[in-house]
Amino acid sequence: MAWKAIGIFDSGVGGLTVLREIIGAMPQEDTIYLGDTARVPYGTKSPETVIRFARQIGAFLVSRDIKLLVVACNTASAVSLEILQEELPIPVVGVIEPGAARAAAVTRSGRVGVIGTAGTIRSSAYTKAIKRINPDIEVITGECPMFVPLAEEGWVDNEVARLTAGIYLQGLKEKGVDTLVLGCTHYPLLKGIIGEVMGPGVTLVDSAAETAARVREILETRGELRPSQESGNHHFFVTDVPAGFIRIGNRFLGGDFGDVYQIRLDDEAPQGGDK
Amino acid sequence: MAWKAIGIFDSGVGGLTVLREIIGAMPQEDTIYLGDTARVPYGTKSPETVIRFARQIGAFLVSRDIKLLVVACNTASAVSLEILQEELPIPVVGVIEPGAARAAAVTRSGRVGVIGTAGTIRSSAYTKAIKRINPDIEVITGECPMFVPLAEEGWVDNEVARLTAGIYLQGLKEKGVDTLVLGCTHYPLLKGIIGEVMGPGVTLVDSAAETAARVREILETRGELRPSQESGNHHFFVTDVPAGFIRIGNRFLGGDFGDVYQIRLDDEAPQGGDK
Repeated sequence: MAWKAIGIFDSGVGGLTVLREIIGAMPQEDTIYLGDTARVPYGTKSPETVIRFARQIGAFLVSRDIKLLVVACNTASAVSLEILQEELPIPVVGVIEPGAARAAAVTRSGRVGVIGTAGTIRSSAYTKAIKRINPDIEVITGECPMFVPLAEEGWVDNEVARLTAGIYLQGLKEKGVDTLVLGCTHYPLLKGIIGEVMGPGVTLVDSAAETAARVREILETRGELRPSQESGNHHFFVTDVPAGFIRIGNRFLGGDFGDVYQIRLDDEAPQGGDK
Repeated sequence: MAWKAIGIFDSGVGGLTVLREIIGAMPQEDTIYLGDTARVPYGTKSPETVIRFARQIGAFLVSRDIKLLVVACNTASAVSLEILQEELPIPVVGVIEPGAARAAAVTRSGRVGVIGTAGTIRSSAYTKAIKRINPDIEVITGECPMFVPLAEEGWVDNEVARLTAGIYLQGLKEKGVDTLVLGCTHYPLLKGIIGEVMGPGVTLVDSAAETAARVREILETRGELRPSQESGNHHFFVTDVPAGFIRIGNRFLGGDFGDVYQIRLDDEAPQGGDK
């Protein structure tokens, strides 16, 4: 019997932080990663458009016969997770719930901050997920649109990053949060600066590790954890040419990528004129 | 006889600076603007992918029966202009040549700076265009990936913008350029800061006005300038939902947008696996 792979998708390179944790937690598993690099970023785009992209990617990865799908993009998790869970024949795991559960578990003051892209924050997905666990927790959110370009430019420890973090995080600091969810897979690259601005009393929650633990739990329950002692194989698909993905991705994953293939994901809808 | 419209496309809102100049120069002309907001930005993506998007958009606008196409995006002009000129049955005008011609005309020192996205700068399109006019001009280029997010965040006059401009423009300043081409349609929004950093001795060249003059010239030569005294009609198509385009676009165009329609541009290629 052949053991199926775990599918993981993100708008680009950011989800590699989640892949890294999955490999760390389950080194024997095969994985297929898809980065939608031709259409990145998702965080500035509308829910309707992100849902359309997520459906195309879900269909592609299911056609590759995966056993579980990880939506390793906060924006896509926020707006498309329930739709994918309804429509796809396999378990679908997002990054919001695991991050929210962790934040609810570690806060002492009951004041949790969440930062993310415009798409993630406007969806209120983290606020809803935290309040489902504990309705008494106060959730304070902030959009940080400049953090993704800063991380991709490699400006994670200079004065521009420091000033930008100061502007975005000022309000959260004043509200006295003791826990801050990094609600975008790029933000862990700016962890140093974010921690510096927030101060030592604030716990930073990175959803990647929590998500990997959730995936392991689900596969174990379903008897689908691969029993092998060997290391798994890792395949990568991107929608733009691979060069940029590999270059920036090395900052996230570290080490050798192996094969990266380019695919097209366009759907075949006729050209319309819907207002 | 019905007079056809001028077609204009950009990856998003940036090309509205060009549309504004076209309306100013030829207020009687009808226009059709397409912003590829579902896939913006182009500047970080590969030539192959940008060419594919440009072909889809060219085909869409030609199907709307335009008389001339303006590629109002520096990245798309840099990598796809010649292909569109070869393949489409109408004149196609980019923003690179008009900006390059202006820079070559105004420089006294013979040292011209060009700033743009990674895609535009790596194509060397401005350098080649300037050297075709005058091979003795020395062209110094710089990539400024943070300028587009800064302009879209509305951070055009704060300390983050000032520091960022200082970092990106330092090298160009030291090389003593007396002319600087703003090789991205977003950059005019940062003109104040860029001018401040470069100093009063440096002329900033904005391609939008030059491009509008070129369009007028071509239509006049072909006898296709609309003779009416009435103001033209302006239609807008976008690939993401219109709300974000209208909100950010108001910073570029100012005033009322009228109707903005959403369309899909996906091509019908099968899902492949080309490496």
